[in-house]
Amino acid sequence: MGNLHRGRQSIVFDRCPAILAAGAIGGKKESEGPLAAYFDGTTADTTFRQLSWEKAESKMQAIALETAKRKAGLKDADLDALFSGDLLNQCISSSFAVRDTGVPFFGLYGACSTMAEATSLAAMAVNGGYTRVAAAMSSSHFASAERQYRFPLGYGGQRTPTAQWTVTGAGCLILGQREQGPFVNAATVGSVVDYGIKDAANMGAAMAPAAFQTIRAHLDDLGRSPEDYDLIVTGDLGAVGKELLLDLFRREGISLGGVYQDCGTMIYDLEKQDVHAGGSGCGCGSVVLCGYLMGQLLKGKLRHILFCGTGALLSPLTTQQGESIPAVCHAVAIGTERR
Amino acid sequence: MGNLHRGRQSIVFDRCPAILAAGAIGGKKESEGPLAAYFDGTTADTTFRQLSWEKAESKMQAIALETAKRKAGLKDADLDALFSGDLLNQCISSSFAVRDTGVPFFGLYGACSTMAEATSLAAMAVNGGYTRVAAAMSSSHFASAERQYRFPLGYGGQRTPTAQWTVTGAGCLILGQREQGPFVNAATVGSVVDYGIKDAANMGAAMAPAAFQTIRAHLDDLGRSPEDYDLIVTGDLGAVGKELLLDLFRREGISLGGVYQDCGTMIYDLEKQDVHAGGSGCGCGSVVLCGYLMGQLLKGKLRHILFCGTGALLSPLTTQQGESIPAVCHAVAIGTERR
Repeated sequence: MGNLHRGRQSIVFDRCPAILAAGAIGGKKESEGPLAAYFDGTTADTTFRQLSWEKAESKMQAIALETAKRKAGLKDADLDALFSGDLLNQCISSSFAVRDTGVPFFGLYGACSTMAEATSLAAMAVNGGYTRVAAAMSSSHFASAERQYRFPLGYGGQRTPTAQWTVTGAGCLILGQREQGPFVNAATVGSVVDYGIKDAANMGAAMAPAAFQTIRAHLDDLGRSPEDYDLIVTGDLGAVGKELLLDLFRREGISLGGVYQDCGTMIYDLEKQDVHAGGSGCGCGSVVLCGYLMGQLLKGKLRHILFCGTGALLSPLTTQQGESIPAVCHAVAIGTERR
Repeated sequence: MGNLHRGRQSIVFDRCPAILAAGAIGGKKESEGPLAAYFDGTTADTTFRQLSWEKAESKMQAIALETAKRKAGLKDADLDALFSGDLLNQCISSSFAVRDTGVPFFGLYGACSTMAEATSLAAMAVNGGYTRVAAAMSSSHFASAERQYRFPLGYGGQRTPTAQWTVTGAGCLILGQREQGPFVNAATVGSVVDYGIKDAANMGAAMAPAAFQTIRAHLDDLGRSPEDYDLIVTGDLGAVGKELLLDLFRREGISLGGVYQDCGTMIYDLEKQDVHAGGSGCGCGSVVLCGYLMGQLLKGKLRHILFCGTGALLSPLTTQQGESIPAVCHAVAIGTERR
């Protein structure tokens, strides 16, 4: 057991935990987007037959976990740990989703970076022999997020062009030791970055500097260049944050363009689906990773990706108190080979 | 690197990370309690010279981190990871506290179990060689918690006899590899337990079953009995939850009484300080661990303790929606010797 850290922020896994299975569940709007075919399940009834939006989100997480377990051929009793989180106050979607499972539970809050944070920690747990099998999960729901962060749905508030649309979705990965991939090969842990952005309707701008800092650290720590990946993909920068990130790299003389994408611009048709700058939320990166990206990795169409969860660590209260928006980005390198 | 897990929920650390230093900061009421002498700092001005209670709590975390770093002779640049969380919506105390530090950051939400969750994860990170040095931190503030969970302070709401008083405090541990203890020797990860308690003014009752489940699992997984510890200490069950926990063990034919205490009943004088069933909050277990318990371990007056963080995973919204209160308990075994 040696020093697996590289630079200050990065970890290279020597046993490279395998992704045993993934589950991706989405809502109605997600079922109408370009990645619809990659979900394990979508629903036109985004209440998931529950009595509140919060219970619906929790149910959706439970379904994502069930789906991943089923695909892996595992039961609750086979999971030694579950790392999950969401955007709701006190992370209730996650804790209520797992209260009947008996699975040892680590609650996380990384805003929309949660899926990458959870995957990093699950990989640390499996790689270190602390657990045999560990799951990583996160969710968001348009309706529960909208009324918590912005306005009640019935209010019909206008949205600015930089605003993003919270994805209704939950994704779950199950990690363990197996000879067959995909594998989690490395992780880079982000620090909190605050460039002074105060517009809560422009979270792409608040998060882009955090994504820049973490991706830059990842490449430096591991001595890699963007071309070492088929795809570097951020969680939910949206159209605005995506351009800002490309610009931040351009200023350093680094071109990301050829291999860079953002889940927030992939999950919806930005021209036709009226989502302004694109998708956002813990569920955005989560379902794109567990659905589309896992699909491409399993088919071998992608062989080595860097998944970068991006989170804006604001609350409605910090905005009311005039605070700027701190952000964080965690990155995990996933490949079809151990490397 | 072998299988360090024992049973389903427990981890035995083979390299036993050392606690390099601890910082414990408290408010006015805490400075008037029986453990006052064990804080590194207390203040009569619980605003910490900030313009809101939330900013005050965040400042308090920053001071706890500064204190622990100073005592360990470390700078921000020496910390490879920080695990922290708090009770506020979107965990803003934690993320705002560290936004100027550059320290790689894992945000957690475990309600009042957070300090034990953070310590477990920091120990996993150091033990596995993922980081050289990692910090664990959490906080709560009476005034920010009161207005978020219950009533504005000026409302002067009556409190029921089972109600607890949120501790104003922040604690920080820094873990690394060193030959001198105290050491983090083992951890038991809790699962979410819900016995159907719905009274948000009786969180001790909601959390006691989770504490029972985790302590029971710890003893079973490691083949230990309560007498293997000088002290088994829960984070914030308070007077009501403490009795319930003793009773749950009694029904199993196990007597905890001789070695069992609760931080919520230790931090205040329950007769004189008008705190009803005792202290609670992320800061309660956190400051008792980082202050009093660390002091006793360093003096050798305690040699082997099991610190059990207890969290009620409710939100005001789940209470309004008629939900019961899920709870979780994480335990860490800390000793003056590696074992």
